[in-house]
Amino acid sequence: MLNGQDTAYEESDLYRLRHTAAHVLAQVVLELYPQAKLGIGPPIESGFYYDFDLGIDEQGQPRTFKPDDLPQLEKRMRQIIAGQHPLRCQEVTVDEARQKFSDQPYKLELIEGLEQGDGDESGETAVPITLYRHDNFEDLCRGPHVAHTGQIPLDGFKLMHTAAAYWRGDEKRPMLQRIYGTAWHSKKELKQYLHLLEEAKKRDHRKLGRELDLYVIDEEIGPGLPLWLPKGNVLREELEKLAREVEDKAGYQRVSTPHIAKEALYLHSGHLPYYAGDMYPPMDDEGTRYYLKPMNCPFHHKIFASRPRSYRELPLRLAEYGMVYRYEQSGALFGLMRVRAAQQNDAHIYCSEEQFEAEFIDVMDMYRAYFDLFGIDKYVMRLSKHSKDGLGKKYADNEAMWLKTEEMVRQAMKNARVPFVEAEDEAAFYGPKIDVQIWSAIGREFSLATNQVDFAQPANFDLVFVNERGEAERPLCIHRAPLGSHERFIGFLIEHYAGNFPVWLAPVQAVVIPITDKNLGYARRVTAVLKARGIRIEVNEGDERMNKKIRQAQLQKIPYMLVVGDQEESAGTVSVRTRLNEIRGSISLAQFQAQISDLVENRLNYL
Amino acid sequence: MLNGQDTAYEESDLYRLRHTAAHVLAQVVLELYPQAKLGIGPPIESGFYYDFDLGIDEQGQPRTFKPDDLPQLEKRMRQIIAGQHPLRCQEVTVDEARQKFSDQPYKLELIEGLEQGDGDESGETAVPITLYRHDNFEDLCRGPHVAHTGQIPLDGFKLMHTAAAYWRGDEKRPMLQRIYGTAWHSKKELKQYLHLLEEAKKRDHRKLGRELDLYVIDEEIGPGLPLWLPKGNVLREELEKLAREVEDKAGYQRVSTPHIAKEALYLHSGHLPYYAGDMYPPMDDEGTRYYLKPMNCPFHHKIFASRPRSYRELPLRLAEYGMVYRYEQSGALFGLMRVRAAQQNDAHIYCSEEQFEAEFIDVMDMYRAYFDLFGIDKYVMRLSKHSKDGLGKKYADNEAMWLKTEEMVRQAMKNARVPFVEAEDEAAFYGPKIDVQIWSAIGREFSLATNQVDFAQPANFDLVFVNERGEAERPLCIHRAPLGSHERFIGFLIEHYAGNFPVWLAPVQAVVIPITDKNLGYARRVTAVLKARGIRIEVNEGDERMNKKIRQAQLQKIPYMLVVGDQEESAGTVSVRTRLNEIRGSISLAQFQAQISDLVENRLNYL
Repeated sequence: MLNGQDTAYEESDLYRLRHTAAHVLAQVVLELYPQAKLGIGPPIESGFYYDFDLGIDEQGQPRTFKPDDLPQLEKRMRQIIAGQHPLRCQEVTVDEARQKFSDQPYKLELIEGLEQGDGDESGETAVPITLYRHDNFEDLCRGPHVAHTGQIPLDGFKLMHTAAAYWRGDEKRPMLQRIYGTAWHSKKELKQYLHLLEEAKKRDHRKLGRELDLYVIDEEIGPGLPLWLPKGNVLREELEKLAREVEDKAGYQRVSTPHIAKEALYLHSGHLPYYAGDMYPPMDDEGTRYYLKPMNCPFHHKIFASRPRSYRELPLRLAEYGMVYRYEQSGALFGLMRVRAAQQNDAHIYCSEEQFEAEFIDVMDMYRAYFDLFGIDKYVMRLSKHSKDGLGKKYADNEAMWLKTEEMVRQAMKNARVPFVEAEDEAAFYGPKIDVQIWSAIGREFSLATNQVDFAQPANFDLVFVNERGEAERPLCIHRAPLGSHERFIGFLIEHYAGNFPVWLAPVQAVVIPITDKNLGYARRVTAVLKARGIRIEVNEGDERMNKKIRQAQLQKIPYMLVVGDQEESAGTVSVRTRLNEIRGSISLAQFQAQISDLVENRLNYL
Repeated sequence: MLNGQDTAYEESDLYRLRHTAAHVLAQVVLELYPQAKLGIGPPIESGFYYDFDLGIDEQGQPRTFKPDDLPQLEKRMRQIIAGQHPLRCQEVTVDEARQKFSDQPYKLELIEGLEQGDGDESGETAVPITLYRHDNFEDLCRGPHVAHTGQIPLDGFKLMHTAAAYWRGDEKRPMLQRIYGTAWHSKKELKQYLHLLEEAKKRDHRKLGRELDLYVIDEEIGPGLPLWLPKGNVLREELEKLAREVEDKAGYQRVSTPHIAKEALYLHSGHLPYYAGDMYPPMDDEGTRYYLKPMNCPFHHKIFASRPRSYRELPLRLAEYGMVYRYEQSGALFGLMRVRAAQQNDAHIYCSEEQFEAEFIDVMDMYRAYFDLFGIDKYVMRLSKHSKDGLGKKYADNEAMWLKTEEMVRQAMKNARVPFVEAEDEAAFYGPKIDVQIWSAIGREFSLATNQVDFAQPANFDLVFVNERGEAERPLCIHRAPLGSHERFIGFLIEHYAGNFPVWLAPVQAVVIPITDKNLGYARRVTAVLKARGIRIEVNEGDERMNKKIRQAQLQKIPYMLVVGDQEESAGTVSVRTRLNEIRGSISLAQFQAQISDLVENRLNYL
């Protein structure tokens, strides 16, 4: 999330409305379970929640909500809302607060924390202590809220589901019962949101990854380490081919570097000891320690340094679809989105200061060309800067270079008319960067990639080139990865396209379906002819009937079904259907081949 | 080396001749250095050596031969040879032998060993003890030798160089002085051999790798871990493209698998603990140990097992240019030939027993098609079999399956009319294999790759498919890697082509050389036009004169130089020269493009 956006959200009507809805929820839970102890109940992205301790059941386990509690609670919430109870705020002393919540141990703990200067549920240190009251319910709360409960639309909110959650996220503390709800300005907004959720579920990349046979994760190999199956591997290869073409045209050269290196390299680059927590443990060979690489940069710097360089070679653009390893916590792993080994669309551009702006803009243009190609309409670019406090700690200790390079990036972005926001204390340790967020077709947000300036590592690795005046000069380095990693970008594309990949990406582009077994020979010949022309095509030789095979192909989201019967066989044609269930009629093989080749070569998004 | 060949060599005239030459060398060294103590002096591939202890010099260091000793020794050897002294063999008892060599401590140690049943210098246990005598020299020796010294051609042998060598290869024992020599049937053969050595030196892949900017090894990253520079990476990508085309046509599907896995996987596959010595040490994550993969097979087995399989999917051919890691001893590392991380042209074919023969023959045909393409005229295939003694130890304990699969391979090879030899006790642990040796253009031998049958791992990973009768059936697995690894195969190709790669492989296919600076604009336009057609071309914009640039291009072994001056500019042509220094004259851009595209598309070996 962008910092700017967070602030805007906290000041929005929606935030207030959701906050109040959480209070109403707590009120009606207390009516149903008078013995319940209250945890916290903040607004969150697209809704709110509230945590409750319902006591212990007959088996000695934490009591949970019953399946039919939610509709009942929702119904009772509507009555409270309809009452249009005003929300009233009151400042109290610590002692007064303690007295009010004397039978609410979690609230007492929060009050204790507030007294000691800890943050409240919003993470802010709140003095004075405030309470919010409506109807007969009062809660320890910093606000803000709507004026009265009636401002929550009766048909614009919904209780979604329950979940277990440890008090303060600490597994050593009691397990509470959380109710998630969502609330919007109107019934229409709620409906849109529920539709988005439905879509996101249908488009879940883990579900589609399994159904479309794209990848598997095997526990005996390890969590976060996907195996790409043949069909998923087509996606990888097509993306890599695209990147190769784009980068060839843009004057990049490809290299390949090892996945491991001695500890010495990472001490030199500064990844150790600071980045050690994100790296796999070392391999210890009698005192020489090897690490899996967390980044490709030091290897490319080594290639730059492998022989003397002249200004004639600059800008030197070294590209590699290089694998990097990050030891994510197992709880943070998520399908292809969070993995432990990711193949990055990486490159490092070594250039002089004079060349910097043009190179940086070219990279931004490359990003935007990719967004066009993939139909990514919504994206935000953020200039992530250093913080003064972090100099010499998380940031290279050279304030002048920070200010200079940040201004260089700012100017480049302005000159290229790329809209962007700025954020402090979000840079890489070696320089400022542009972070890119993109939104999928159904409006979900993804962090994609970055475009970074590096003034620190070239000095670190003593990189120099001989300039036109015969002097040794230090290059700048641009780190860029417009497609991020294979893993995350394919995860995004699966959701974005709902598995309906454009023809050029589709693992299987067409399937030939013989109407009867008699037509199997012709079906095979058609397949052989088109396969020889580079089309990814197969014939369905199964025993099922034609309609079942069409259905199978649609479930596999194969763009084209070529149905062939006696008529097609004698005319030398194929009867074309699409995964959208369009019936296109019979055309010659040559016509079909010309159509599909056009879509593939130009990477078009329609069928 | 092939076992069969070793035996043949030991019984050859050349072996005898070299053995006798070693004795004559020892004789003349004793004349020059009467205090010398003799080590051993066996024939070796293409020659012989003898080890001597020359005592201690004034500095307390082992005394070495002087630079002009070799010609002097060689001259004196000729005199002995000319004497046509007969070689006489005598059997002696241990005590007699001890008496004869009472002032030769190394020989006494050898006699001691023979008495205890150790091997002699040939590694064979030799009873009875034999001595060979000629002229006034006698040596502890099992033979065989030529009849008299005159059978060594006076102009067919040469002392090559000296080297230090520990007694019995043990660095805790004394350091001896070794003299290497070579000996042949004739002056002509010697000359050919010396030419081969000269050529091999010029073609050394480490030397050319550096000169042609193909790869570097960086000590801070680690030994045996090459970094592929842009030009070397072109070779990798072109080989991979070739393999992809060949394998696409042959019905392979590509997958990508992680480079690391949990210890559990390798325990399952049997690589641990047996193969641990060849693997990098583990990464220990609080008790969960991860290893770099030494082979791709278990990962492909996991993919096969990732969902139920039907006979309709078989043969299932999973291909991957997968990186494997082998922890070679640092002393064994050698440029690209012996590395610690090698990208294998790997594939695993899962098939039924009925499908086996056709699949196996297809693989052998693929090997032979590659050999044709690369002009590899000489190769030997060996069927490597189990040994009865090794069953349950180094070989899967199922004698019936060994005999059955060895016979299946034997029959397949015979039916495909592929000549092969057989060797016991050389199989993989999971089944028999065909090992392939190839010879480079200058006659040096390389181990390339293998084609293996695996009946053990499919059982190990419980791989099954549902056959046509609806029953679960166990597939066989064929492991194959016709191009071996990128690293070793490129190392071979560098020597084979002496860096003069065919156009389709050449990192830079053409360089444009402007006659004067005036023609630079045209040179750049020519470059841009041809680059857009996919030709790897660059323009030499340096300050040097034209002839120097032509020389630079020839040293870089760039196939074509396109010289452009005023005449070419006005006619829209290029003047073509080749790296072989042929001057082809002026042709139009379109003609040049057509010519080069033909060579590239058809992967032709000429210019």
